[in-house]
Amino acid sequence: MSIVVVGSVFMDSLETPHGAVDRTTGGSATYFSAAASFFSPVRMVAAVGDDFPAADREFLQRRGVDLDGVEVRPGKTGYWKGRYHENMNQRDTLDLQLGVFADFNPRLPGAYLDSEYVFLGNIDPKLQISVLDQLDAPAVVGCDTMNHWIETSRNDVERMLERVGILVINDEEAQLLSGETNVVRAARKLLAKGPQRILIKRGEYGVIQFSADSVFAVPAFPLEQVCDPTGAGDSFAGGFMGELARSGDSSEQGLRRATVYGSVVASFTVEDFGMKRLQSLTREEIDYRYRQFLSLTNIENA
Amino acid sequence: MSIVVVGSVFMDSLETPHGAVDRTTGGSATYFSAAASFFSPVRMVAAVGDDFPAADREFLQRRGVDLDGVEVRPGKTGYWKGRYHENMNQRDTLDLQLGVFADFNPRLPGAYLDSEYVFLGNIDPKLQISVLDQLDAPAVVGCDTMNHWIETSRNDVERMLERVGILVINDEEAQLLSGETNVVRAARKLLAKGPQRILIKRGEYGVIQFSADSVFAVPAFPLEQVCDPTGAGDSFAGGFMGELARSGDSSEQGLRRATVYGSVVASFTVEDFGMKRLQSLTREEIDYRYRQFLSLTNIENA
Repeated sequence: MSIVVVGSVFMDSLETPHGAVDRTTGGSATYFSAAASFFSPVRMVAAVGDDFPAADREFLQRRGVDLDGVEVRPGKTGYWKGRYHENMNQRDTLDLQLGVFADFNPRLPGAYLDSEYVFLGNIDPKLQISVLDQLDAPAVVGCDTMNHWIETSRNDVERMLERVGILVINDEEAQLLSGETNVVRAARKLLAKGPQRILIKRGEYGVIQFSADSVFAVPAFPLEQVCDPTGAGDSFAGGFMGELARSGDSSEQGLRRATVYGSVVASFTVEDFGMKRLQSLTREEIDYRYRQFLSLTNIENA
Repeated sequence: MSIVVVGSVFMDSLETPHGAVDRTTGGSATYFSAAASFFSPVRMVAAVGDDFPAADREFLQRRGVDLDGVEVRPGKTGYWKGRYHENMNQRDTLDLQLGVFADFNPRLPGAYLDSEYVFLGNIDPKLQISVLDQLDAPAVVGCDTMNHWIETSRNDVERMLERVGILVINDEEAQLLSGETNVVRAARKLLAKGPQRILIKRGEYGVIQFSADSVFAVPAFPLEQVCDPTGAGDSFAGGFMGELARSGDSSEQGLRRATVYGSVVASFTVEDFGMKRLQSLTREEIDYRYRQFLSLTNIENA
């Protein structure tokens, strides 16, 4: 099954304790699409400027990502410059230029409208809703959001959540959106807002997933070096939704497997700067690390 | 198999966001002993003052803890007053009176000397070494330590570690002792100091366990309310060592199971203030939650 994803494309300049890169391609739609493409066909909806590098377009096309929904507009692709702290759980924005992302208004190509799997990346919740309005009858809808929208457009975020099955956010956003610091109580409150599944990303501690009657927790893959955390969350969502669309299995077990596949892809993304590791990644490496996850977490059959 | 544990007994006054208690019995040896007693006979080595409450002595005796190694000395039992922050990951010490703990010098009763399982709770590393010197030939030696000893007595801590098989510490202590912020690199460095197993406690994120050729990670049990984190780490160590001594199984699988049993007991401890929950806890509740842990973490057979 194809997945349609809407989100951002940015050029990122990144500094981490392990080095720096200048103007490498990033953004939520980009990481999501590259990650999901290892599992399912992806239809990408985003806006880029006329400065968008041909090499990056070619990488996504090589990965089979359908770029018909990527609008090329006169002007500059969004730009973000960030610096991570020593522990890499925090980062500072040093520069932000929205470019053509400032008035992004997603229009889905006709061929995308029958998509059954949809992921609404982190953009204005009004635009997330407009994407849902354009689609015929999506079966599985996932979304992300961020502090900025929760603080400035809470009503729109809540309206959007009523139409979403799977919410994928990080722990800080879950606290802000629910008003609860305890992760179990936060998840209960978020489930009451509409989604049937809440996936809370906890960075180096992994992911915890809630439904009304189940809880599943998986650690992050223990890496000797995290080079650059940028895109980890979007890669997680891409691997997760990609595997769900591939398997068509939204049972408890299907969702757990997809959560681990998302964790696998995210663990590769952070091994190098920007999209670099995703560019060399193979399906065989993904499957090998999936088995390592089974071993990492297995209690009764070590 | 019996376990001998050496550590502290304190009277704790605790404030958390969920309430406060005054002068409730705590200390590393107490929590460890109560937790381990659900699995194996425990021999407790500590010092208390002549003010130590009879009710607490009786509780430990009812749990089958051998108190022959608990020296009652003229003076006061150690006292600690602490206040937890809103998120309960941090706490401030408001008062500390060492009392008879100040010149604690553990002397093991003759009947303890053949113990095969030993846990060196968090006390001066010189005293931890003296306990090892007294024992005949312990087969499995676990230990804890803390920032204070790492900062003031690093050489003694390192000498102690050379004689220990299993190091159980929290993430902050692992960083300080290894000089590494990355948990995998920290564990590698700690393994090089002597222990064959490193168990790093990560509070609400669970435990990650390393040997030279294996990694195992288990989340903490997701609780709707953590009432009081005091004693969670010592309860974890008690459940872990208790199950190891019960099973006699120090294989990879035996160690993983023991890690989960430790996590189970710790998850009960934090449900109420001080030792209160451990006083009502049953073996059936432990086994039920152990099965919940299997479900919480299971990927392939949800």
